[in-house]
Amino acid sequence: MPFEKYENASQATRWPVSKAMKQLVVVGTVAIDQVKTPFGERDRVFGGSASYFSYAASFFTPVALVAVVGRDFPPDYRKVLEEKAIDLSHLEVSDGKTFFWRGEYGNDLNTAHTLETQLNVLMDFNPRLKFETLPDFLFLANMDPALQLSVLDQVKGAKLKYVACDTMNFWIENKREDLLRVLKRVHCVVLNDGEARQLTGESNLIRAAAKMREMGPNHIVIKKGEHGALVFFEGHFFALPAYPLESVFDPTGAGDSFAGGLMGCLAAAGEVSLETMKSAVAMGSIVASFTVEDFGLERLRRLARAELDERLEIFRRVCSF
Amino acid sequence: MPFEKYENASQATRWPVSKAMKQLVVVGTVAIDQVKTPFGERDRVFGGSASYFSYAASFFTPVALVAVVGRDFPPDYRKVLEEKAIDLSHLEVSDGKTFFWRGEYGNDLNTAHTLETQLNVLMDFNPRLKFETLPDFLFLANMDPALQLSVLDQVKGAKLKYVACDTMNFWIENKREDLLRVLKRVHCVVLNDGEARQLTGESNLIRAAAKMREMGPNHIVIKKGEHGALVFFEGHFFALPAYPLESVFDPTGAGDSFAGGLMGCLAAAGEVSLETMKSAVAMGSIVASFTVEDFGLERLRRLARAELDERLEIFRRVCSF
Repeated sequence: MPFEKYENASQATRWPVSKAMKQLVVVGTVAIDQVKTPFGERDRVFGGSASYFSYAASFFTPVALVAVVGRDFPPDYRKVLEEKAIDLSHLEVSDGKTFFWRGEYGNDLNTAHTLETQLNVLMDFNPRLKFETLPDFLFLANMDPALQLSVLDQVKGAKLKYVACDTMNFWIENKREDLLRVLKRVHCVVLNDGEARQLTGESNLIRAAAKMREMGPNHIVIKKGEHGALVFFEGHFFALPAYPLESVFDPTGAGDSFAGGLMGCLAAAGEVSLETMKSAVAMGSIVASFTVEDFGLERLRRLARAELDERLEIFRRVCSF
Repeated sequence: MPFEKYENASQATRWPVSKAMKQLVVVGTVAIDQVKTPFGERDRVFGGSASYFSYAASFFTPVALVAVVGRDFPPDYRKVLEEKAIDLSHLEVSDGKTFFWRGEYGNDLNTAHTLETQLNVLMDFNPRLKFETLPDFLFLANMDPALQLSVLDQVKGAKLKYVACDTMNFWIENKREDLLRVLKRVHCVVLNDGEARQLTGESNLIRAAAKMREMGPNHIVIKKGEHGALVFFEGHFFALPAYPLESVFDPTGAGDSFAGGLMGCLAAAGEVSLETMKSAVAMGSIVASFTVEDFGLERLRRLARAELDERLEIFRRVCSF
């Protein structure tokens, strides 16, 4: 399905469609989570890397979601995604149950403790990109690097404007070779500080970033949770604190929302420069700062674009000297 | 001794003396350290909170150092302080040995492990402020809160423009009542994130800062090591990442240099506003970023004011979006 539909949809959801705006596709997971934080516990939260990513990105640009769910996937969850300009025609429905994750956070809200993972339909997932026109911006959310490679093979030869990926400790440890192959073929990697250290064996993040650049990507975005983010953009460097929050309710999806805001803004700008990257990272932080204020996508669902802009303005004042 | 002398000294060391520039006094420790980091080990390093503070502050304003050393204090160390516009006429020399600290850093350079402390002449130290004119800016560096209180008693009734203090985990645990009395009587407290959490029992730093404001100080500066600093200034908030460093050699004195740069800039500006505070915190971070590049005061001794300004400019670009 071509993206034109979403230019119409966009009018309904009232984000501006600029001519420069480029198509954005995310490949990742859609999940049902069970989450416990120091502030509460919730069963059957709508989660998954691609869900958070696409909902966050849709504040800025139309986005197509490539993922798989099981027959049990609740229609209500689909409706959540339909609230925004998210193309769901590439959301596969397979026999079996939707991917399930159960996790817990202690007082250190920066670290999720995975208690249970049921891959379910993810076991046989093989993402297929069936677009009439290939997108300009592609995000490979956290998933098996073998699947990320399979997606990259499908766009081989096509001149994609910008491809970024995420990953996690499990793949760094168990699928390192595949992951290194992925890194060779992306423009940008988005990962957290612990993952950056684990991947490179460097405790200093500037040296870790230099090592990652040697692995392939020209742009490195290191997420540090409540401590903000570091961005290495070719020869340039950019550091940002996190937007200060008095109450972090549930950190799940913060990283994926950050990446969604980031890629959404880049795609909306239509080009990747130091300046668009800076603004995009700042806006990514702002989207994430809303995500963590409630379980799942709840806060983003109540979020108006004007709130994002307002908080971004406060953030700018908070950081400038 | 009046400060006029330092206006002359300032011409030699080439910092500009503005009419607004106010006198700055620090009360704290002068020490001989033994330091081990992952990058090396050194015996008899010139250290102490007031040494780092005053050397850092002297890049911006004349500073008077109130502290005590033993008869063993090496003349060469005194000469180090004499390189700058630091008034040493309040540096007491007592019978006994100079305060000694031995510490070690592991790969986590944010945390110092104290292996040995010999208080020596600090045991009987009772700082006395004997100034013809009381200073406008006073910093109570990390030391027993009972001594900090004694200093505050000596300036009772005098309208000091700005009084700030530092502290550490040991005093929070063992001298809490005295510390709370100090906090009631200062404008600003400068401490690290772990100390802020310990003092308030709040893991969220924004809530911790709110609790500290209820304890007295209107301004709270929380140092987060490699993650930067948070500043709570009356109703305002300010967050800064750390200046990105590829090699941190020895973190000893980073916090004291930060405070020295901060207070030095405020005193040089002659007034404390949100704007002067922002610039002062940024410059404090920059001074600290140089301190950690070598053992003790070695890097600061080789440091030109122009290097500070240059790195501050880079820092501004690194943080702005």
